[in-house]
Amino acid sequence: MKGYVQVYTGNGKGKTTAALGLALRAVGAGLKVYIAQFVKGMKYSELDSLSRLSDSITIKQYGRDCFIFKDPDKEDIRVAREGLEEVKKIMDSGEYQMIILDEANIATYYNLFTVDELLDFIRAKPEDVEVIITGRMADPRIIEEADLVTEMKEIKHYYQKGVQARDGIEK
Amino acid sequence: MKGYVQVYTGNGKGKTTAALGLALRAVGAGLKVYIAQFVKGMKYSELDSLSRLSDSITIKQYGRDCFIFKDPDKEDIRVAREGLEEVKKIMDSGEYQMIILDEANIATYYNLFTVDELLDFIRAKPEDVEVIITGRMADPRIIEEADLVTEMKEIKHYYQKGVQARDGIEK
Repeated sequence: MKGYVQVYTGNGKGKTTAALGLALRAVGAGLKVYIAQFVKGMKYSELDSLSRLSDSITIKQYGRDCFIFKDPDKEDIRVAREGLEEVKKIMDSGEYQMIILDEANIATYYNLFTVDELLDFIRAKPEDVEVIITGRMADPRIIEEADLVTEMKEIKHYYQKGVQARDGIEK
Repeated sequence: MKGYVQVYTGNGKGKTTAALGLALRAVGAGLKVYIAQFVKGMKYSELDSLSRLSDSITIKQYGRDCFIFKDPDKEDIRVAREGLEEVKKIMDSGEYQMIILDEANIATYYNLFTVDELLDFIRAKPEDVEVIITGRMADPRIIEEADLVTEMKEIKHYYQKGVQARDGIEK
């Protein structure tokens, strides 16, 4: 089956969750999924669920706990760049039919790796692999290269009412 | 934990998949999730995955195979309306902390049930239940009532290139 490149960007809620839903659907159809989470180094509730499906989904985090929307240091950059290289090798292995690069757009925005490096990754995609890229601030060149792009647009958000992120809902 | 009403609408890809991802995350945090799929009566790959998590996720379809974006007949309307009533009783039971009404916006758009009926459902929500509503064409009154609204906006879609829906990716 021919694979494509999907991008989920924008400032609204639902980008990572859409990727998780895609992973769930793919696994249901017998595909194997590799999820690389950039930027995030925290423990998310979804990992508990995904571990129950662990024969078909592999998830690995390539981000440190302490980096969130501030200037990255050399260690942040090393972790992200080596991560992208590792995922490229995993993609080349042919073991997985879906590769999710969660928050990769934000990773380029904060110069953890470059847009050119992400483009190289996309262009190296084997024919039958689906690549999913999430994160705000998708670079126009990534959008141009992708086959499907959805912008999650925030119309209304309860954070504006002062609601804090909740276990099982936001994290 | 206080629950809210989330709406995922718009013409872009990712609405149902975002809801599935939310379900996965909620289950990971020990919540119980009820997914009601309106309009759809088909078998989706995600159901295979969800069945593996069946102790925490219940999914039921309240739509017939043959109804897709055409005028509903009395049987379509009966199935959807009785479905919404059934889900309301299930919500009232207190067993589930997350209720997903997949494609409920489209159900109101095609008059399977009314916007008022969906509003009644939302307003009857117990304090600690999270309600997720998906589907294109969300009515302005539903958007007004919701706490969080994301519009999935199609920027680019490979359907325009003639790609057909694929098992494990779109269905």
